[in-house]
Amino acid sequence: MKIVVTGAAGFLGQRLIAALLDRGEMTTADGVLSAITQIVAFDRIAPQHCVDPRVLPKIGDIAEAAAIADLIDSDTDSVFHLAAIVSGEAERDFDLGMRINLDATRAIMERMRNATPGAKLVMTSSVAVFGGQMPATVPDDLVWRPQSSYGTQKAINDLLLADYSRRGYLDGRSLRMPTIVVRPGKPNAAASSFASGIIREPLAGIEARCPVDLATLLWLMSPDQAVRNLLHGHELPAEALGRDRVINMPGLSVTVSEMLQALRQVGGATAAEKVTVDRDPAIEAIVNSWPGNFDATQARGLGFTADPDFPSIVAAFMRETGRMPTVTGAR
Amino acid sequence: MKIVVTGAAGFLGQRLIAALLDRGEMTTADGVLSAITQIVAFDRIAPQHCVDPRVLPKIGDIAEAAAIADLIDSDTDSVFHLAAIVSGEAERDFDLGMRINLDATRAIMERMRNATPGAKLVMTSSVAVFGGQMPATVPDDLVWRPQSSYGTQKAINDLLLADYSRRGYLDGRSLRMPTIVVRPGKPNAAASSFASGIIREPLAGIEARCPVDLATLLWLMSPDQAVRNLLHGHELPAEALGRDRVINMPGLSVTVSEMLQALRQVGGATAAEKVTVDRDPAIEAIVNSWPGNFDATQARGLGFTADPDFPSIVAAFMRETGRMPTVTGAR
Repeated sequence: MKIVVTGAAGFLGQRLIAALLDRGEMTTADGVLSAITQIVAFDRIAPQHCVDPRVLPKIGDIAEAAAIADLIDSDTDSVFHLAAIVSGEAERDFDLGMRINLDATRAIMERMRNATPGAKLVMTSSVAVFGGQMPATVPDDLVWRPQSSYGTQKAINDLLLADYSRRGYLDGRSLRMPTIVVRPGKPNAAASSFASGIIREPLAGIEARCPVDLATLLWLMSPDQAVRNLLHGHELPAEALGRDRVINMPGLSVTVSEMLQALRQVGGATAAEKVTVDRDPAIEAIVNSWPGNFDATQARGLGFTADPDFPSIVAAFMRETGRMPTVTGAR
Repeated sequence: MKIVVTGAAGFLGQRLIAALLDRGEMTTADGVLSAITQIVAFDRIAPQHCVDPRVLPKIGDIAEAAAIADLIDSDTDSVFHLAAIVSGEAERDFDLGMRINLDATRAIMERMRNATPGAKLVMTSSVAVFGGQMPATVPDDLVWRPQSSYGTQKAINDLLLADYSRRGYLDGRSLRMPTIVVRPGKPNAAASSFASGIIREPLAGIEARCPVDLATLLWLMSPDQAVRNLLHGHELPAEALGRDRVINMPGLSVTVSEMLQALRQVGGATAAEKVTVDRDPAIEAIVNSWPGNFDATQARGLGFTADPDFPSIVAAFMRETGRMPTVTGAR
């Protein structure tokens, strides 16, 4: 079985590839559990070095038709498409966002339709497709009313994936992800970047700025949980999904204040005191347009899962980065 | 004031142009009531001959960038974009539908952004964006879950129009139209074509086939009402719309059986007996995926209106085509 992963150098891509290698076999669109023979790890920059002979790194520009033609062929069984321009960058540079987030995704779908019809496509969507007046808990049938170009582009991808799936051009699954926390590495141009920064930086002894009010409600998922759900989304049989190919993931509904309490509880008071609230209206406008809670009925029925609580997310991040949590999670 | 109309040779385009000429002035994006100096009537075929010197006919392929560049320039104040591939055709020929319904619409928006930023764009969307499990009456905040490629393409246009408007690239208004009945002329490849055919053909003494069950509930609007709403949608100030640029129009919720009763009442028993039910599963699958009723709260609040009842739609069509209604509408 040959699997393509785009955005392979990203933190989620790297974890996904590690999890796929660890698992060793996945189910093809025909429903056959098959050994993973190759993972093509595509990104614009070189992915983390990987000694596993099953991984074939490929560097290229996903906006180029030739790169996509080279990436996906008749042997490709599944594509995990994670590559994207983040929300802040897509808002600043509309054309870049359209090219990478929309046109490249559509080109991948077209290539799959022509080269390997019916293959599986697992994609990440975003809560940024929602906006405007919303109930406190978002039901699965709430209209998508994106208030950013990133959310618009993700919503369009979702519509395309559903139609390509309905027509049998591919077997698509779009997982609408909560904000992923704690991301490792450096802050990025996502409007949600602070949500990782206010945990990651203090734990490394660095001052962190929180650009939103403490009462801001976020909808969160840990990187490990996201990978578990990506694998689960891939493995679900098409019949279980029917025509509903775009799935609001379960998550944790947590205020920034609760996040900082968890940081204090699990990471210690010294860490928690490194966070300063310094509100940024541009970031608040985007973040406040996202919903803070979902019922995720369809997803739970399909067996997708959420993290148990926020302290355990902080504790897992500390263990991953070689630190010892003060308290290992609330439960 | 210079106005561009695409799909100008279509029945709605022709009526819209006549109504614009009759009105003589419209409001620009700056809020200034201005005399209409030119209407560029664009279509792939020659529009109906028009002696009014304000109308400039233009024949071209909307899928060509050069045609769009030639069509819209810095003098263009408003665009009414009506050109589209109908639902049945977009379902049969996916690539054609994507090219005309999606890519050409996006190209129009890009051209407006570059040549005449902030100009008004009035577009028709469709109830075909809805599907799957739905409440009996569709609320304004129901998710779009298209079950056809046509519906998918219209939904994507709606998302783009909202984002282009939010960014100030244009001042967009997308009116989500009910099925327009009674269309004049010949049957077309729209899955909803029968809804006009079962009135139009019998009144002309021709046998008509009804491909859906008599209990099928349709959401309808007359051509005149559609034009009234297009003009109203153009004239509304941007502040009244805010970010909600995609508006479910009010309409009439009528069963096919009620339509045939109205035909009998207004057009006579001889006409009504020319309709035979001969169900077509392919058409029923598409038509039954569309909702039969909407609350259209936002639209009514903004002053959009519906026809009073179905007999008056039949009576208006008869008068237009030089026939005398038996009873001139129910009220």
